[in-house]
Amino acid sequence: MFPKNAWYVACTPAEIDDKPLGRRICGEPIVFYRGEEGQVAALEDWCPHRGAPLSLGRVIEGRLVCGYHGLEMGCNGKTIAMPGQRVRGFPPVRSYPVVERHGFVWVWPGDAALADPATIHDCFWADSPDWAYGGGLYHIACDYRLMVDNLMDLTHETYVHATSIGQKEIDETPCTTRTEGDHVITERRMFGITPPPFWKMALRGAHLPDDQLVDRWQICHFTPPSHVLIEVGVALAGKGGYEAAPEHKVSSIVVDFITPETETSIHYFWGMARSFNVRDKALTAAIREGQGKIFGEDLEMLERQQANLLHWPGRDLLKLNIDAGGVQARRVLDRLIAAEQGAVVA
Amino acid sequence: MFPKNAWYVACTPAEIDDKPLGRRICGEPIVFYRGEEGQVAALEDWCPHRGAPLSLGRVIEGRLVCGYHGLEMGCNGKTIAMPGQRVRGFPPVRSYPVVERHGFVWVWPGDAALADPATIHDCFWADSPDWAYGGGLYHIACDYRLMVDNLMDLTHETYVHATSIGQKEIDETPCTTRTEGDHVITERRMFGITPPPFWKMALRGAHLPDDQLVDRWQICHFTPPSHVLIEVGVALAGKGGYEAAPEHKVSSIVVDFITPETETSIHYFWGMARSFNVRDKALTAAIREGQGKIFGEDLEMLERQQANLLHWPGRDLLKLNIDAGGVQARRVLDRLIAAEQGAVVA
Amino acid sequence: MFPKNAWYVACTPAEIDDKPLGRRICGEPIVFYRGEEGQVAALEDWCPHRGAPLSLGRVIEGRLVCGYHGLEMGCNGKTIAMPGQRVRGFPPVRSYPVVERHGFVWVWPGDAALADPATIHDCFWADSPDWAYGGGLYHIACDYRLMVDNLMDLTHETYVHATSIGQKEIDETPCTTRTEGDHVITERRMFGITPPPFWKMALRGAHLPDDQLVDRWQICHFTPPSHVLIEVGVALAGKGGYEAAPEHKVSSIVVDFITPETETSIHYFWGMARSFNVRDKALTAAIREGQGKIFGEDLEMLERQQANLLHWPGRDLLKLNIDAGGVQARRVLDRLIAAEQGAVVA
Repeated sequence: MFPKNAWYVACTPAEIDDKPLGRRICGEPIVFYRGEEGQVAALEDWCPHRGAPLSLGRVIEGRLVCGYHGLEMGCNGKTIAMPGQRVRGFPPVRSYPVVERHGFVWVWPGDAALADPATIHDCFWADSPDWAYGGGLYHIACDYRLMVDNLMDLTHETYVHATSIGQKEIDETPCTTRTEGDHVITERRMFGITPPPFWKMALRGAHLPDDQLVDRWQICHFTPPSHVLIEVGVALAGKGGYEAAPEHKVSSIVVDFITPETETSIHYFWGMARSFNVRDKALTAAIREGQGKIFGEDLEMLERQQANLLHWPGRDLLKLNIDAGGVQARRVLDRLIAAEQGAVVA
Repeated sequence: MFPKNAWYVACTPAEIDDKPLGRRICGEPIVFYRGEEGQVAALEDWCPHRGAPLSLGRVIEGRLVCGYHGLEMGCNGKTIAMPGQRVRGFPPVRSYPVVERHGFVWVWPGDAALADPATIHDCFWADSPDWAYGGGLYHIACDYRLMVDNLMDLTHETYVHATSIGQKEIDETPCTTRTEGDHVITERRMFGITPPPFWKMALRGAHLPDDQLVDRWQICHFTPPSHVLIEVGVALAGKGGYEAAPEHKVSSIVVDFITPETETSIHYFWGMARSFNVRDKALTAAIREGQGKIFGEDLEMLERQQANLLHWPGRDLLKLNIDAGGVQARRVLDRLIAAEQGAVVA
Repeated sequence: MFPKNAWYVACTPAEIDDKPLGRRICGEPIVFYRGEEGQVAALEDWCPHRGAPLSLGRVIEGRLVCGYHGLEMGCNGKTIAMPGQRVRGFPPVRSYPVVERHGFVWVWPGDAALADPATIHDCFWADSPDWAYGGGLYHIACDYRLMVDNLMDLTHETYVHATSIGQKEIDETPCTTRTEGDHVITERRMFGITPPPFWKMALRGAHLPDDQLVDRWQICHFTPPSHVLIEVGVALAGKGGYEAAPEHKVSSIVVDFITPETETSIHYFWGMARSFNVRDKALTAAIREGQGKIFGEDLEMLERQQANLLHWPGRDLLKLNIDAGGVQARRVLDRLIAAEQGAVVA
């Protein structure tokens, strides 16, 4: 169960540079490619001729040419031409609203009439010279909501990521959670603690001392359908923490765009946007590599948790204070899904 | 859905030279081996003792000895002996009509009473000194009819086999299709074109010039249950094309015996029989290697097409003029299958 | 269908030395580990917090700490603590009776109230200086009863293990089978035969000549739920066979503890206990390696037999005299399973 009237990250632009990309999004096989003007197009991955996946074809002058018998498909899902054929009566395939923005390709798998690009998540860092970004993509066999839970309860860092970003104080410091409309915020602030290895690296990267106590914060923002943006950072202790002046802190935004592939699998676009030392490409690469390793530690846990839930399907889970972020996010999702289904029925 | 009262290629003789072969044909697990006189035998792959697959056993003096507890099975499906046992009351296993002919082992998975070896496809090339043959076997996860479609519409060569046998003129030249009884023929003739790489190689192999224009033909013959034989060739332009004298042309027969393994998988026996330069074994090997590479290009397309059809099970496919060969072949198949089922009911 | 009110071998102690072990037993995911006093504990492999498998966690001072968010679980299935949480109301997870004994960890997947450690199989050899033991573990995709059948009918040795322990005389010598309560015994005694390669090695290991005729015996003992212990040995011919004085014979016990994982897969704990040359560790290793190789020869046969039974689910198997051991063992099992189900209904 996922909202379909929503913008999801489908891929990065680099994934469609050379050839069409076939990817299942919210259960639907879709082909992504660049049309005549270079604009992104998204169609059902189905050739109306014999059902071959269009993603096995090629893009020639902005036309998607089926790799089986040469049908030429337009960005609107209507067949343009086919050798030796009149194509006017060919049934169209579905085209999906799709937008390239902020370094991602965004797709709307639901009702196209409701798709408003103005509602695409504002990744302000992506278009600012004051920010740097690096990230990657993992495929994980779990319900997308298990990943939302994961990211909205960072106490797991103490256990899953013990050697990098975890530290005992995360566990020991209560978090607070609130919902503002469809926006769920969970935050935790820790004071006068030793920075863990990842943040020591970041402090050095920002030319700050790594051997002093710091104040550390984690502010998780869930917004529908399944975006989790986390403001994270450390400031030298006593300088104001989250509100400290830029020269005393290093901070960044953990970026998580979670796109359901099926009911029990996801495309997980993870990354980090930072506002310190932004021209240092080696630092960007080092952070990306470190984050990739850390986020890879969640995979087995999430997949095995999913397997357990499938084995004991009726079983209740606890909803503790630390789970409030995930619980409130699911409430938002349940409301949106119900509204969609009501709309469909009406 | 496949005809069962039909001769299918089960394997090549080499596959049963040293030991029994277990292979599923039309959904039925069957063991193939050589009996006492060296003749081929085909039985249910089931030991009546404890259900072990007989194909894990050994052949000793023409008796198939179960690899588990030594039951000795006869070619008729009746147990001959078992150490320390009286076997008269042992239930027989099914034996299948099976014939070794034309370099293949042919099996009849349906009603044995209807099996007439005279109806085995006449592979005249196999037993003639004027022809040479080479071929191979692929396992493909698709409905056997998708492969029939593939072979009865060669416009796909332009796209799937662009670098070997494909050329634009195939697309641009209409084909004609007709059904004569159970025999469906689709043909296309092209005049005054440049030979593609595969045919240049064949021209050189036949000691003909490879830098001249040629006339090219493709005459596809479907016969039940799922044989597609394709007469292909090129003649130096203006010499009469298909009807040209032998010294002006190179021609061959593309041999496709498609054996359903299950409803969505096949054993695909492909090959090429040629009547030029037939003693040149290096040429046979080169053609076989080239054809294997070309035919391997279809695998991903067919398997992904099958996956798409399973994802959208109710969806209609187009039936264009180029699809007439496959469409008419399916009509023949539907008629045969209905007749079989009627016969069973009656 | 397996008895659940029974002691099964779950693992060896070494498997839980360093970290918890997750293993499915009789369909139930269970985590095994050592508690505070070093005693073995067995719990549902489910964290009551969010359903993560506890087996992905760590054991810290005898507490099983969930690897996801740090919940600390006690050996009784009650949560001891969790950072920042009151855990009194947390639902318990099921704990299973579990005992470490005779070099194995034994678990009782059924009604805990009925679990009596006194009924654990008496592996007298394990605690005696007069015996040596070596063994291993295989995972096999078959119904546990197919392995019981296999071990209660050793005529398969002639075929499956032709090069090691098989010999023609096994086939040719009838076996006798009897049931005493829940205990099924099948035995076969052969006189004046040539020892096969495995026993030649054992004779040399016991400093006996390997070039003389021997008397050989195989006495298979099935006891519920699925233990098969086989007394095997050879004595120099004419010295009394099974009853011969120790200096004239080599004998051992083939140990088979078969633990259902699911309805169609098993954890197969195999080994050999011997009473000759017991201090020779190199001999123990050589026998273990040889036995591992021999028992590995059964895997493909059993898995393919299982696949055949699934393909032809209604088909009858023969019940010959050689099958009497397995047949009578299944009768014992059917009775025990029926009694369990009756108890549940009542």
